[in-house]
Amino acid sequence: MEKSERALIIIGGKEDRSNDKLILREVARRVGSGKLVVSTVAMAKGTGELFEQYEKAFRSLGVKHLFDLEINSRDEAKLDSKLRILDDANAVFFTGGDQMRITSQIGDTPIYQRIREIYDEGGVIAGTSAGAAAMSETMLVYGGDEESHVIGGSVRMAPGLGLIGGAIIDQHFMERGRVGRLIGAVAQNPKNLGIGIDEQTAIVVERGTGFYVLGSGAVYVFDGSEVSYSNIAEEELSKTLSIYDLRMHMLSQGDRFDLRARAPRQMKGRAAEKLPEKEEEETAEVA
Amino acid sequence: MEKSERALIIIGGKEDRSNDKLILREVARRVGSGKLVVSTVAMAKGTGELFEQYEKAFRSLGVKHLFDLEINSRDEAKLDSKLRILDDANAVFFTGGDQMRITSQIGDTPIYQRIREIYDEGGVIAGTSAGAAAMSETMLVYGGDEESHVIGGSVRMAPGLGLIGGAIIDQHFMERGRVGRLIGAVAQNPKNLGIGIDEQTAIVVERGTGFYVLGSGAVYVFDGSEVSYSNIAEEELSKTLSIYDLRMHMLSQGDRFDLRARAPRQMKGRAAEKLPEKEEEETAEVA
Repeated sequence: MEKSERALIIIGGKEDRSNDKLILREVARRVGSGKLVVSTVAMAKGTGELFEQYEKAFRSLGVKHLFDLEINSRDEAKLDSKLRILDDANAVFFTGGDQMRITSQIGDTPIYQRIREIYDEGGVIAGTSAGAAAMSETMLVYGGDEESHVIGGSVRMAPGLGLIGGAIIDQHFMERGRVGRLIGAVAQNPKNLGIGIDEQTAIVVERGTGFYVLGSGAVYVFDGSEVSYSNIAEEELSKTLSIYDLRMHMLSQGDRFDLRARAPRQMKGRAAEKLPEKEEEETAEVA
Repeated sequence: MEKSERALIIIGGKEDRSNDKLILREVARRVGSGKLVVSTVAMAKGTGELFEQYEKAFRSLGVKHLFDLEINSRDEAKLDSKLRILDDANAVFFTGGDQMRITSQIGDTPIYQRIREIYDEGGVIAGTSAGAAAMSETMLVYGGDEESHVIGGSVRMAPGLGLIGGAIIDQHFMERGRVGRLIGAVAQNPKNLGIGIDEQTAIVVERGTGFYVLGSGAVYVFDGSEVSYSNIAEEELSKTLSIYDLRMHMLSQGDRFDLRARAPRQMKGRAAEKLPEKEEEETAEVA
């Protein structure tokens, strides 16, 4: 096992947990002989089964030190007994559920400070679905599936965990028709890249400066740097969004993205060879 | 009523037919005192009700000369009695259904020649849903909803009516999650713009050189002119598409697009003032 290095593994949901586990395998590889804490804080109480699914998956991938961080209220998040679960951990995995449960319960608590510390000290923070959405400074919370963005529409955003800067993450991306809402988020402030991640697909952000794609689907990057016009600040709330000159990249496994240069490129040489094979559609069972 | 001028009215489906009829009103305005032929060729036999819906709508909008061109086979399309329905028409409206029924039944027939003539002589050709998809040289036929494009995926294309060049039209666009398939089509040959039209929304193409947007949704234009890399020609058919540096515009009512310059711009002055008011969500009943 290689020593882990500071990384975010941001998963679009429905990653395989029972067959070749391509994405979880990468999480496990980076945990190495360290300690992984799986947090089900995004799910309401009684999510034992979800933790057990991940426990089974990660154990089969060789993770020896695995702990459950279940949190059901903000008070509970402040308990010392909960904080101690993170002692000596080098990796945290946030499951799916509701991203607002993550931020409202652990935001500005010692638990959050400790997770931040684990990351800053070279650890791995992973999250799927709600756990992926919560990674950005501003997170998409709900609304806007399968529709074009309307200025005063139903899309809601909230402050996220802020582990990745300069980007807004969306998940279950093409499966739930979320292009409209992510473009809306980019239009509101083009300082943020919009990053939409399909199911069974992840981005692995290394050192906060760039990412590569893992999994069978696509990752879409919307870059508003060159936007020449948008009506997003108009007062007529029922107006459908207009935005000209968005730059867009559709990436899949084998592609990297440089977050500072805002530029995609192909992975070549040894880095590309080390990528796992794509999951076979026939055998992959998704949950 | 103004005299009609050569135009295509390409509608993303589900245009209002019973309340303010914003889009059909524009068709009727351009028909003026002329003759409108509604063709239900995209629908299988027994579509009397569909024709009657349009008949009622167009009559209420002041269209006096309105005829039904129902075609159920290629043989029928060649009948002189069918061709004569188009005599003196200055406008043809294709309903929804299956775009392959339109092209396989009227392609390369005198009916098609006559429709082409009506258009070239300054008439109006309109189409909604399947009738919109059929407008392009190469049309999207089926597949690819709510998924990212895979090189050897399920999307199927076929030769269309070719009334609009240099573009591939898709419809029910954000509602059915069709971004993936339209990007796939553009990747295959970036000479074509990808134009995705939402429901209750239309583009009005004037003189074949540009269009403006009408209706409550959005129109998405994908421009592959500056694409720097794509894996679309790779042999591994199960690979998810990669494409870098697509330019994208999201347009709504009040926007124009210059097809030659591939550039959007806002409508200003009298042209903008003449646009109808957006439909109210509360009262618009869609079919």
